[in-house]
Amino acid sequence: MNKARDFDQSVVAELRALLGERISTSAALREHHGKDESYFPYAPPDAVVFPHSTEEVRDIVDICRRHRVPMIPYGVGTSLEGHILAINGGVSIDLSQMNAVLAVHEEDLDAVVQAGVTRKQLNEYIKHTGLFFPVDPGADATLGGMAATRASGTNAVRYGTMRENVLSLKVVLADGRVIQTSRRAKKSAAGYDLTRLFVGSEGTLGIITEVTVRLYPVQEAMSAAVCAFDTIDGCTRTVIQTIQAGVPVARCDIVCDKTIDAINKYKKTRYRVAPTVFFEFHGSQASVVEQAETVQEIARENGGMDFQWATKPEERNQLWDARHNAYFACLQIRPGARAVSTDVCVPISRLAECVHETMEDVKNYIAPVPLLGHIGDGNFHLMFLVDPARPEELELAKQFNRRLVDRALAMEGTCTGEHGVGMGKQESLAKELGEAVDVMRDIKRLFDPGNLMNPGKVVPAP
Amino acid sequence: MNKARDFDQSVVAELRALLGERISTSAALREHHGKDESYFPYAPPDAVVFPHSTEEVRDIVDICRRHRVPMIPYGVGTSLEGHILAINGGVSIDLSQMNAVLAVHEEDLDAVVQAGVTRKQLNEYIKHTGLFFPVDPGADATLGGMAATRASGTNAVRYGTMRENVLSLKVVLADGRVIQTSRRAKKSAAGYDLTRLFVGSEGTLGIITEVTVRLYPVQEAMSAAVCAFDTIDGCTRTVIQTIQAGVPVARCDIVCDKTIDAINKYKKTRYRVAPTVFFEFHGSQASVVEQAETVQEIARENGGMDFQWATKPEERNQLWDARHNAYFACLQIRPGARAVSTDVCVPISRLAECVHETMEDVKNYIAPVPLLGHIGDGNFHLMFLVDPARPEELELAKQFNRRLVDRALAMEGTCTGEHGVGMGKQESLAKELGEAVDVMRDIKRLFDPGNLMNPGKVVPAP
Repeated sequence: MNKARDFDQSVVAELRALLGERISTSAALREHHGKDESYFPYAPPDAVVFPHSTEEVRDIVDICRRHRVPMIPYGVGTSLEGHILAINGGVSIDLSQMNAVLAVHEEDLDAVVQAGVTRKQLNEYIKHTGLFFPVDPGADATLGGMAATRASGTNAVRYGTMRENVLSLKVVLADGRVIQTSRRAKKSAAGYDLTRLFVGSEGTLGIITEVTVRLYPVQEAMSAAVCAFDTIDGCTRTVIQTIQAGVPVARCDIVCDKTIDAINKYKKTRYRVAPTVFFEFHGSQASVVEQAETVQEIARENGGMDFQWATKPEERNQLWDARHNAYFACLQIRPGARAVSTDVCVPISRLAECVHETMEDVKNYIAPVPLLGHIGDGNFHLMFLVDPARPEELELAKQFNRRLVDRALAMEGTCTGEHGVGMGKQESLAKELGEAVDVMRDIKRLFDPGNLMNPGKVVPAP
Repeated sequence: MNKARDFDQSVVAELRALLGERISTSAALREHHGKDESYFPYAPPDAVVFPHSTEEVRDIVDICRRHRVPMIPYGVGTSLEGHILAINGGVSIDLSQMNAVLAVHEEDLDAVVQAGVTRKQLNEYIKHTGLFFPVDPGADATLGGMAATRASGTNAVRYGTMRENVLSLKVVLADGRVIQTSRRAKKSAAGYDLTRLFVGSEGTLGIITEVTVRLYPVQEAMSAAVCAFDTIDGCTRTVIQTIQAGVPVARCDIVCDKTIDAINKYKKTRYRVAPTVFFEFHGSQASVVEQAETVQEIARENGGMDFQWATKPEERNQLWDARHNAYFACLQIRPGARAVSTDVCVPISRLAECVHETMEDVKNYIAPVPLLGHIGDGNFHLMFLVDPARPEELELAKQFNRRLVDRALAMEGTCTGEHGVGMGKQESLAKELGEAVDVMRDIKRLFDPGNLMNPGKVVPAP
């Protein structure tokens, strides 16, 4: 925490001249910006800045580049793979004050926002329009952060991830150029897809300052239901058959019995303690009834109990609030623990097998291992609860995770469905994509020859 | 056509040693590979090769690189912006014999194909599975070509373009490396999105040899309908209101009265000669009825006549066959003419205005200017028919197109919704994206420092 003393004070002076009070080197603020939701040790930046505009971000980038100081973009710090840790020190560029909704185009079903706008803020802002923004990773993350990590979550099975839902980005590059990656038209074949190149680049190729996202009409009917099953296999089979039947289910998330028990205790809910699927159906009244009937029938054949419905908006919100709190609820299974969260995603035909083998494997872990995930996409998470005071536990959890990743890769899956690479998945990424990772490294060098843009993440310099 | 004489005969010898009879320098074959559906003058390659595997493509690339010979990937030659013209000579790499379907994963809703498989071939191959591949640019293009040009077409309004429907690619790079861009999982946050970088790169960054695409369940009901309107404005208003109402329409294409007249003459159909929208609805029986009723009501309010239905598969195919033949039908408006096809795409809120102003402008063109397009996406085409013997007509058509592009750009649109940049849209691309095009050029240089991969397309070397 003493790095600030060595930090070039002329950088601070220049940033102060630019930003006035909107730069800080206070220990508390630096510490806050040096940790996320991951298990990695704190790595505070030397300074934190709060720009208000793309132009200010560009000026910050220019100052940092001249002084060869690392730059780490920061949203709200909810990432899970150490994305925002300042492992080489430098300046944390906190975009939370760039939180203006710049335009809502109701007719075009899109909105242009500054990178610091959170998904809940946007949905609140557009409530009266009858539109909504679907991507929902649980946390109330910023749209800039969600774009940077290619976030997804519960709604992705129907509405896609940030990959599908970002129309265009404004990005400040390492050399100070500011580019708009695309026009606002719904589709385009105009050159290389720079939008998608920056979506998921985790701040390593440039700093996203504005995001144009797709919006969707709120459907006539939106109903959620939970369904308990005898076994996890029953859950996965139900979801697989639902997808294959072409039911346009809007959400289908799994939680295991340990997770639902933790949710009940944390949220004072009274769900049956059993493997459970949370469903949501969107469409016309008739279509939602039809979808629900089809899925209920599939569920019954796989050992599912009756659906427990939530149709009013507040009931639906409550239900998904319970699901979204699963992470924090599960942390209470072992008070004081931190979580190592896994994130594999496999082709859905291999999902049951992958979950089954994994649950067998984790039986031997030192603590209960709750499971939760977006099984409509083949993506699930385990939470290994580790005592931060006992490094051997972290090592053990990592061993389980390595086996899980190897299992998923052998099934043509990916090491990360939605959390990103950050610091935690670099070795797995190399196993997963081989020489393609060298190509990523070439791209990193092209965009950031000085290795100053969130260094050490995704593909660190050799 | 005499370039072959100067062409390094040692290249031919090496290619022949590799490929035996599967290399040709015959004038007829070279001429065939030196033209597409665009208005650009023929530019034949020096040789044409027909690889059968990714390894052969890699070996071809190695030979061409050593001899500094341009390489132009070729599918079936249906592109519209000169993509496959060998403007610097070189070797046309015809992938049409790489036409094996490598795997169909019915449970995962995906298929892995060699780049030369065409969309109709794939759909025929998977017919028995109850799945289909939706992207449909009209022509029976190869999936490699469609990926390379980020093709879309009539179904994109519901199912997305190649951007959304390619899961992974195998690509041979200019330096001979072979990479797989992604795993087969439905979503992934594993590093930079190389898949999307190659989708739309038009053969300028590498040669796509395998494509993994998404498939969709054939819906219970699929009904098509045509609806004639008093005015083009009535068509556009209907489609805009349909999209905004959240109706998940599967297709909605417009043709103007001139186009429908040409179709009637070419296909011996008897559609009413009036601005017309071709619709298609996919879903359960109940949902399709519901969708159709909603849209019929919207259409009536905007001067639409009664729907003329096609519900049986053969009737539907006939209807879309008529629509797909619009291009060739319109060429007959002026026998012997070639077409300069425009391709702007604008935010849907500006569509009516853009179409209206454009139709006013083209009144003064020397020939009828038929309009057709995918207006659910805000994408429409005009066909300027030019006499190839009169260069001044081509110049005039280009002037109209430049005005159209400027109009679309002023409305936050793009110069190309689906045809790509090729040789025809480079100036427009620069207007559209400014400094972002410099970034594209940097990427081109990184991937292809020798400027041998389809040189002169998208972002030519300065």
